[in-house]
Amino acid sequence: MAQFPLAPGSSIGILGGGQLGRMLSQAASRLGFDVVILDPQAESPAGRVSRQQITAPFDDPDALEALGRLSDVVTFEFENVPSAAVDLLAVNGAAVAPGPTALAVAQDRSAEKAFLNAVGAATVDFASIDSADDITAALPRIGLPALLKTRREGYDGKGQAWVRSADEAEAAFEAIGRAPAILEAKADFVRELSIIAARGLEGEIAVYPLGENRHADGILRTTLAPAEVRPDTAARAREIAEAILDGLAYVGVIGVELFELADGTLLVNEIAPRVHNTGHWTQDACLCDQFEQHIRAIAGWPLGSTDAVARVEMTNLLGEDVLDWPALSADPAARLHLYGKGEARPGRKMGHVNRVRGL
Amino acid sequence: MAQFPLAPGSSIGILGGGQLGRMLSQAASRLGFDVVILDPQAESPAGRVSRQQITAPFDDPDALEALGRLSDVVTFEFENVPSAAVDLLAVNGAAVAPGPTALAVAQDRSAEKAFLNAVGAATVDFASIDSADDITAALPRIGLPALLKTRREGYDGKGQAWVRSADEAEAAFEAIGRAPAILEAKADFVRELSIIAARGLEGEIAVYPLGENRHADGILRTTLAPAEVRPDTAARAREIAEAILDGLAYVGVIGVELFELADGTLLVNEIAPRVHNTGHWTQDACLCDQFEQHIRAIAGWPLGSTDAVARVEMTNLLGEDVLDWPALSADPAARLHLYGKGEARPGRKMGHVNRVRGL
Repeated sequence: MAQFPLAPGSSIGILGGGQLGRMLSQAASRLGFDVVILDPQAESPAGRVSRQQITAPFDDPDALEALGRLSDVVTFEFENVPSAAVDLLAVNGAAVAPGPTALAVAQDRSAEKAFLNAVGAATVDFASIDSADDITAALPRIGLPALLKTRREGYDGKGQAWVRSADEAEAAFEAIGRAPAILEAKADFVRELSIIAARGLEGEIAVYPLGENRHADGILRTTLAPAEVRPDTAARAREIAEAILDGLAYVGVIGVELFELADGTLLVNEIAPRVHNTGHWTQDACLCDQFEQHIRAIAGWPLGSTDAVARVEMTNLLGEDVLDWPALSADPAARLHLYGKGEARPGRKMGHVNRVRGL
Repeated sequence: MAQFPLAPGSSIGILGGGQLGRMLSQAASRLGFDVVILDPQAESPAGRVSRQQITAPFDDPDALEALGRLSDVVTFEFENVPSAAVDLLAVNGAAVAPGPTALAVAQDRSAEKAFLNAVGAATVDFASIDSADDITAALPRIGLPALLKTRREGYDGKGQAWVRSADEAEAAFEAIGRAPAILEAKADFVRELSIIAARGLEGEIAVYPLGENRHADGILRTTLAPAEVRPDTAARAREIAEAILDGLAYVGVIGVELFELADGTLLVNEIAPRVHNTGHWTQDACLCDQFEQHIRAIAGWPLGSTDAVARVEMTNLLGEDVLDWPALSADPAARLHLYGKGEARPGRKMGHVNRVRGL
């Protein structure tokens, strides 16, 4: 087993070679670590900026064992990692962070909301659903309209269906493929906020200021941070983040999406046990961004400063948005972060731009 | 030939796989470029964060041609690139920046000082030396003590000898290996400053604030920037940088080391046609650091903002200094940049730390 804190020159393994893996790898390199990526796509965005890539499916046992052998600690750019994979990663003695509990909780929307409520973080009312009849039975408590989501997988609005009347129960269940599901009450929120926070190996916690998010077609478009919020809202968000991190004995960076209601109440929409799209603003506003923070946490280093020294509007560059690079590159306040992806398919996250303003 | 400005996804070749190549590569990746490194050391610091490394000596003709073939533009992390190598890089149509004129001027200390004087940038008095007798003949004009330096190669104080009396001429010439040399008058300076500047493909120029440098044993230890200087000193330094960049029809980032005399006069000590150790402070004080600026320039992109939004003290981590990483990692104002080098040999540049303060 490696000794923590990991010395520079140690190896960090990352499951997933997309943009989050790429920015994690770049942060790790700045601290003198070597990085190994596992991804099925040869020369993935992250692989191209890392010492080594193992090109194999995420469930390939040999590849998972090899990644663990080459790494002192292994982490993830996505949450849908089967626990069997985590076990294989650890076969050769590599640490794995965040741990299996956090992954298991985040992989099941029903378990996630139950966990959140248990640690005192409010959510919308919800019910676990295994049949269309379950929907009909739950509706009197959940109310209309209600949102049906698969319990596992699905992101950016995929695997979801609205139930606007009891008649729609069967159609909605069919629409999400009759998979185990969760029925959620509609949140009557005034805006979506998110909070990025980290917990270190010794249990210390660092929390970034809140971001305010705008989505379109279920995909994040912009985050404005630090968001303008009442002091008690900021304090409550920090409490929620701390309760979640401690409740999971978490190590690393977590993203917590919040609904702000008209009366200031915060409900947790979902948690992502990884660096998060709504935390990209930290790259150009904080001395230690979410990517370095995650690397610091999993390497057992002290956490870095989460103070914002600027205000940033982060805008995702989706699909052909990235073709605007000539104009974006000419704006001195626009910090470009491009992911090295070839094909600008509609909706594909190709990069983001952080527009920096004074505080 | 590639079209400029280079689109994201284009390839940038870098001759040299050390820390400067590494930080150039990381900046290029952020803008969506792919990077190919040529370096004789397998898995060099830069190679480990780049898409590809060609491992071969710097004068290997096949390797140089291959680097040019794989790249849309090729650049350098060091200035001692023979013009024959530049020709080989360009065989397959790659652009090369900065160009051969800048390299030739910067490679010969005598040609460099003659060029500087020709564009109106003052230097110490100097004489070209090819024998011990040349030293004796030049001393009445240059004065005592005088500094003898090889015309080519040599850095961080290597290849230099002081001449403190006419009797020492022969010994000094012997000490530097009887190589073609330059004899320089001693500069009676009060401090060493440096200015980092860039010139784009269209001739536009961007200049960073001045840094104040402290050396020990001929090696840079710290840069404090922006340096506290009189407005006319800042204006004169900017004029000097512009005259040099225009005089060389330069493309990319250049480092200009300056001596500040007691009366405020600035003499140019030397120029480095590349990103420069005294410009590392820009990484944590400017929206666009010297590495991204160099990539922008050679890719034909608009230059980025050189405004400093913080004051930084940059300290080189030499040899075993890097073993202080546990303490450095615990200082929230200390931004660590480690180079991924294995062996902490005495004097070896292992990393640097930028200590960030408000302006």
